Amino acid sequence: MTLNKRSKLVEVSRTLAQVATGRAFADVVIKNGTLVNVYSGELLEHTDVAVAVGRIAFVGNADHTIGDQTVVIDAAGKYIAPGFLDGHMHVESTMLSVTEFAKAALPKGTTGIFMDPHEIANVFGSEGVRLMHEEGQQLPLKVFTTFPSCVPATTDLEDAGASLEVSDIEEGLQWDQVVGLGEVMNFPGVVYGDPKMCGEIEATINSGKTVTGHFPSEDDHMLQAYIASGVTSDHETVTREQGLNKVRLGLHLMIREGSAWHDVKEVIKVVTEDKVNTSNISLVTDDVSPQTLVEKGHLNHVVRRAIEEGVDPVTAIQMVTINVARYFNLEKDLGSLTPGKCADILLLDDLQKVEPTTVITDGQVIFDEGKLVAQFPTFVYPAHIRSSMNVKRELTVEDFQLASRGKEEKTSVNVIQVIENSARTAKMTATLSVEQGIIQPDTEQDIVRLACIERHRGTGEISLGFTHGFQLKSGAVASTVAHDSHNLIVMGINEQDMAFAANELIKLGGGTIVVENGSVLAQVPLTIAGLMSDKSLLEVVEEVAQLEGAWKQIGCPLNAPFMTFSLIALPVIPEIRISNRGIVDVTQFKLIDVEIV
Amino acid sequence: MTLNKRSKLVEVSRTLAQVATGRAFADVVIKNGTLVNVYSGELLEHTDVAVAVGRIAFVGNADHTIGDQTVVIDAAGKYIAPGFLDGHMHVESTMLSVTEFAKAALPKGTTGIFMDPHEIANVFGSEGVRLMHEEGQQLPLKVFTTFPSCVPATTDLEDAGASLEVSDIEEGLQWDQVVGLGEVMNFPGVVYGDPKMCGEIEATINSGKTVTGHFPSEDDHMLQAYIASGVTSDHETVTREQGLNKVRLGLHLMIREGSAWHDVKEVIKVVTEDKVNTSNISLVTDDVSPQTLVEKGHLNHVVRRAIEEGVDPVTAIQMVTINVARYFNLEKDLGSLTPGKCADILLLDDLQKVEPTTVITDGQVIFDEGKLVAQFPTFVYPAHIRSSMNVKRELTVEDFQLASRGKEEKTSVNVIQVIENSARTAKMTATLSVEQGIIQPDTEQDIVRLACIERHRGTGEISLGFTHGFQLKSGAVASTVAHDSHNLIVMGINEQDMAFAANELIKLGGGTIVVENGSVLAQVPLTIAGLMSDKSLLEVVEEVAQLEGAWKQIGCPLNAPFMTFSLIALPVIPEIRISNRGIVDVTQFKLIDVEIV
Repeated sequence: MTLNKRSKLVEVSRTLAQVATGRAFADVVIKNGTLVNVYSGELLEHTDVAVAVGRIAFVGNADHTIGDQTVVIDAAGKYIAPGFLDGHMHVESTMLSVTEFAKAALPKGTTGIFMDPHEIANVFGSEGVRLMHEEGQQLPLKVFTTFPSCVPATTDLEDAGASLEVSDIEEGLQWDQVVGLGEVMNFPGVVYGDPKMCGEIEATINSGKTVTGHFPSEDDHMLQAYIASGVTSDHETVTREQGLNKVRLGLHLMIREGSAWHDVKEVIKVVTEDKVNTSNISLVTDDVSPQTLVEKGHLNHVVRRAIEEGVDPVTAIQMVTINVARYFNLEKDLGSLTPGKCADILLLDDLQKVEPTTVITDGQVIFDEGKLVAQFPTFVYPAHIRSSMNVKRELTVEDFQLASRGKEEKTSVNVIQVIENSARTAKMTATLSVEQGIIQPDTEQDIVRLACIERHRGTGEISLGFTHGFQLKSGAVASTVAHDSHNLIVMGINEQDMAFAANELIKLGGGTIVVENGSVLAQVPLTIAGLMSDKSLLEVVEEVAQLEGAWKQIGCPLNAPFMTFSLIALPVIPEIRISNRGIVDVTQFKLIDVEIV
Repeated sequence: MTLNKRSKLVEVSRTLAQVATGRAFADVVIKNGTLVNVYSGELLEHTDVAVAVGRIAFVGNADHTIGDQTVVIDAAGKYIAPGFLDGHMHVESTMLSVTEFAKAALPKGTTGIFMDPHEIANVFGSEGVRLMHEEGQQLPLKVFTTFPSCVPATTDLEDAGASLEVSDIEEGLQWDQVVGLGEVMNFPGVVYGDPKMCGEIEATINSGKTVTGHFPSEDDHMLQAYIASGVTSDHETVTREQGLNKVRLGLHLMIREGSAWHDVKEVIKVVTEDKVNTSNISLVTDDVSPQTLVEKGHLNHVVRRAIEEGVDPVTAIQMVTINVARYFNLEKDLGSLTPGKCADILLLDDLQKVEPTTVITDGQVIFDEGKLVAQFPTFVYPAHIRSSMNVKRELTVEDFQLASRGKEEKTSVNVIQVIENSARTAKMTATLSVEQGIIQPDTEQDIVRLACIERHRGTGEISLGFTHGFQLKSGAVASTVAHDSHNLIVMGINEQDMAFAANELIKLGGGTIVVENGSVLAQVPLTIAGLMSDKSLLEVVEEVAQLEGAWKQIGCPLNAPFMTFSLIALPVIPEIRISNRGIVDVTQFKLIDVEIV
């Protein structure tokens, strides 16, 4: 089955009117289900939904729209819900191409995404964004893009493969289906009037589009200054108190449940306990791993989590349908099953499990009885996008040895402490031995070596540091998924394995790898920009499963450790990170020394 | 006090950020009130609102924003609410200029209106719209315009002074602060694909603006076809059942409480009894008389009515603030007291009476302690707008005599039955005597003569008919306020007074008049387009009071009879009307004979 052409409402509204008034027949009628009405907040039994030319033509008793050619789908005993919309996410986190992601997400009920392709933007700039956006436009999944705002994520603290200026944003905002500005992470820049940040926001507002936010701080004065800039959402909230404050201040609260951070349990209390109006709240995934996609689902898992915490199912579904569509000013096309809207429809057996049995987009059955039934087009990335590793030279053991600046046998160092299932890190200090002038890691204290190698421009720049929390006992890991600049990060017990891991990954063209004693335990090649695989979901899941096993084998007991690791170079979330330029104190937005003198 | 310049958010957001973070001081701080938080749906005690450069800079404890020059307003014991927004109304109904209307509405808490100037458009086309819109832009009231969509209201059933084509709408949509298309009354045109209606809707959607609706029918098939066109609201709902259906279908439900029709009592049951989600519902006035403005208020009266019917006050206020702003995609500027929004603020002593004690717009006190404290600029309409009467000749007694087509002494006629406090009419039939070939009215049956005279182009065209329900006993009335074409309508017991009333009104340059036995009992001169006075509110109220007294004097006991009368020529609301071309059966959209043969 090939895909329908997608039409604008004004192109087809006359046909819809003919169907509604019985002058033409529907293409599809979903008969006699229980409608999840996201406008009224009701469940309406014995309701039909008639579809023509890819959009909803009639809702109610649609017998008058059924002709000889009409396909009638019996929905007796089932719920009929609008397709789910993910208001903030990064496809790159799934390690899949947009096409393979769509194949995974559609069966879970996600029919539309608002992706911020800022990972590929940090590697290939506007061109990378354009390629992913174009890939999205040919799919039965509705792919909207918020144009990345902070590439690189910080100025003067790191080097990415590309940078996006105000002029790039202005151009990108003109592309069809680019609906806003991606998460504005540089909140101090916004608050203190950084011209680039203010220019991007102004360009977005002037284009009539949406400025999405990212505000992980707890400073209410900063928050209100940030909101006054015109930023209208946030997905970084981790406490009930901050969630309540943001709702009160009119910020669209995106409650996140990703693979490596689980915010629903705490933040959903603004709904279940504070009982605020929910019309300006949505549920988002932000970042999910391929494993999560297979094991738990996508946005339907977040809806299920909200329901498990006590949210009424209709309210939870509003938070992934109408609330999202309205936030992005797409209510006329998406987010509800009402006349004129795109026929993106889920059938579900119950509203606790939230597992669609049938998924329809643009009036066409895409997933049914456990199988994808649509043909997905292929999209081939150009060769240079699949050749993104540019490290100056082969790495050596010495590259990973950090010399002490003093002459003592012990020294104090700043250490990056990671926190399981959280995007945050904590700044801690440790005392380490110095041998032959080199600061030594200490497995007893769980202090291991860390490195970040510039990989985009062949500068040969390497920074070194230490981390706590991964509990490695042997070997090394390396990754080119290293938010947001996606340089080459390496962590290990010994320098030999660190150099080996880095060199193997360079040969692979990017990805993530675990090695031990000179052998590769597992690897996930990510040839598209060093971020995404060109393989299918199940192949990637298998590779990632092996990777996770390998992390365990070298001692790490954490949930999704490679995702936590991939954030260790992200200098926009507190408290402390590593970049290719050195150790970053994110609470002060400045580089600090590893050694404390 | 002269008015502040109004700024765009991007022009002042850096200043707001400085105030929020304590680097600059606020202009005004409203201290220690109970905030009506329309996002969370809460009442928040002990809250301050800091204002700078006309917008909200900080909400919460704003002590850090108070400097030597900051004006501090004590709000202890008071509620602090966002200014009210009227999502659908016609300024012309108040018989006031936009400036005089603003002086009346601001003290009642209305700080923004979405006006559809379709009355003046029917007289002077785009030029009339532009003049009223321009008048609005210089006021402390925020005046947004929805560009009139149906001028004339119907094709082939009446003649207005102007007609607006798709190209006029396309041009008007480009004007600053024109936010959408005015109520699309020709719903059969939309449903059956009329090129003009579809073209206007397409132009509006393409411009990213809002298509507002008008759907008085109960035909659900037609309604859904209408919604699929891209129309997104309706304010013509008179039953709970239809209100519930419209909410379920995603139509923004505007519940109306005007001077001559009172829909809140019935339609608000969708909130109080059906308990639907209210985020897509608003309260509007549509048409209010100057009397109502003085005696009951403006939008605050509608809010009060909703509260009297059992709606929670915060919910009722949401329905005139955030819900309206969101519907028109103006949430970033209006509808809440959150950082960055225009400082349009009401202080209220209680939430049952809904009477503001202080009204602030753009951070400036406009009304305080019972007095307007701002200077309003004057606006002078050009001479030709003040000279709109173009009737071919003086009218005679014979002009009002309807000859029977038969030879019998009795004849059956179609009669327009008016319904008190309703915009509807009912089609009834009556048997009348014929004397000397002329059909006679019958005071016993309350059947009086009716006429509609073309007044824009000097064609001399006159149509005649009969009406029931006004209970006139003597004299005649005439009006150039005669929705929507605003021809000259005349009603009376005897032809002499009918001719006298019409001729007097022509001399006056338009307005509305009551005469009896050759004397003027009362008159309201409406020199601006025959629709609006150039006098002040209190002068107009006094004139209208005398007019109402005169209506009573000639026998009419109805509430606001001149408003009901002014709708008698409106061929877009069922069931039967008179136009300059004849009697219109609105259920069939066709001209019918007076006599039934």
